[in-house]
Amino acid sequence: MARLIHHSTEYRIRYSDTDKMGVVYHGNYLRFFEIARTEMLRSMGLPYAELERSGYMLPVLESYAAYLLPATYDDLLHLHASIEDEVAAKMTIQYSITRQDDTLVTGWTRHVFVTSHNFKPVRPPKHFVDIVKGTHS
Amino acid sequence: MARLIHHSTEYRIRYSDTDKMGVVYHGNYLRFFEIARTEMLRSMGLPYAELERSGYMLPVLESYAAYLLPATYDDLLHLHASIEDEVAAKMTIQYSITRQDDTLVTGWTRHVFVTSHNFKPVRPPKHFVDIVKGTHS
Amino acid sequence: MARLIHHSTEYRIRYSDTDKMGVVYHGNYLRFFEIARTEMLRSMGLPYAELERSGYMLPVLESYAAYLLPATYDDLLHLHASIEDEVAAKMTIQYSITRQDDTLVTGWTRHVFVTSHNFKPVRPPKHFVDIVKGTHS
Amino acid sequence: MARLIHHSTEYRIRYSDTDKMGVVYHGNYLRFFEIARTEMLRSMGLPYAELERSGYMLPVLESYAAYLLPATYDDLLHLHASIEDEVAAKMTIQYSITRQDDTLVTGWTRHVFVTSHNFKPVRPPKHFVDIVKGTHS
Repeated sequence: MARLIHHSTEYRIRYSDTDKMGVVYHGNYLRFFEIARTEMLRSMGLPYAELERSGYMLPVLESYAAYLLPATYDDLLHLHASIEDEVAAKMTIQYSITRQDDTLVTGWTRHVFVTSHNFKPVRPPKHFVDIVKGTHS
Repeated sequence: MARLIHHSTEYRIRYSDTDKMGVVYHGNYLRFFEIARTEMLRSMGLPYAELERSGYMLPVLESYAAYLLPATYDDLLHLHASIEDEVAAKMTIQYSITRQDDTLVTGWTRHVFVTSHNFKPVRPPKHFVDIVKGTHS
Repeated sequence: MARLIHHSTEYRIRYSDTDKMGVVYHGNYLRFFEIARTEMLRSMGLPYAELERSGYMLPVLESYAAYLLPATYDDLLHLHASIEDEVAAKMTIQYSITRQDDTLVTGWTRHVFVTSHNFKPVRPPKHFVDIVKGTHS
Repeated sequence: MARLIHHSTEYRIRYSDTDKMGVVYHGNYLRFFEIARTEMLRSMGLPYAELERSGYMLPVLESYAAYLLPATYDDLLHLHASIEDEVAAKMTIQYSITRQDDTLVTGWTRHVFVTSHNFKPVRPPKHFVDIVKGTHS
């Protein structure tokens, strides 16, 4: 049975993140998902920059976000990312963005492994699969 | 039966839209959806700025995007938005982003009408409903 | 005596450009300077994308902006760029951003020609110099 | 004689910060200056959010940046901000952005205190001046 790997990162809301409604512009949450995803990979010992240096990329195929409550200026948010430990060619990462007990935004992104030189879909590198499978044990 | 109202706007890709993969950063497409949506409303005689001046806002509840093909620097894109002519309290707007014959990105956003002073959901203003219903006739 | 080459482009302010002060976030004006600069080069018959394809880049060395008056949501701005017709290895481009009779922002950026393959400063390509010199004649 | 107050904050470069040149888009450094400035104020016991709640704002009048060396994806930068301890109606904040021993970007922003309700320039709040001068200690 698949188990979830989870990681959370702090993020402080800046003026540049807000819009004239006085809250965070909805489009910025995809940037926050990126931060959550990258730091989760780093925490697993899989920095995305290294993945790229070894010839792979993980472009985003799809994204979804539900905006439940607004974040406001200077809020300190927690950006949560999680994946299942069974990695296939396509990989879904789940997110939730919280402020203390409130969940502000939830969502997911879907990715595919490609090679850097020709952008063709490939199987996830064995090193990646091994680490994902072994992370929780 | 509902009919679709459709509008399309040109957009030129800038350096600031791209990322180190050499293509448009996926998170920027939500900004492009905003442009498509705003210009569709303007073309219907419903500038969003006026909607706000009359006491309403249309925050985004959910967003979805599918990234099919990458856009690159200096591309001239067409940003298409469409809605059905039957407006309820919640409204879904559909998007597609094209470059000549290629569809690069598709997606949708879901919105709710709220009052500006207390952010409470309300029925769409009659003026808005009338224009949406009458646009294609 | 040097003469000025000038071009102006329209830009509509979007929600994503604003911040919680209700006006355009100051950092966004560097993006607007890029739009003004790119469209000025295109109007001269020198699309920046072609310059890159021919092996050159024009990175920004310095930028300055004076924020005189705020731009607000849905404003239709004019983005003006100008250069002198005497091009040296380093090139300064001047900007002003106006809304009807008001000047909202002024500034400049300083650039250097480099080769794409090693980022080394080089003399501006002859094709570029010829067009700049000939544009006003 | 004026003395400098200085503070530094870490910042990790994200995909969304980069452009197709493979380095950080120059316009993003004004966002990084904002982060440096805000965290310096917080470290002095003067969170900008509190300044706003007490009826003041500190809009940017001018900005300057010199781009000396490029920052690249996943770099861990230090964002340094400093001000002199003699505060007048207008205030200049200095920045430098470093990666280990390298200084990548330097610059400054110039600000004025205004009241939130009418955007009129005012003298800096006494509480602010006292803390900057250190008379609270």
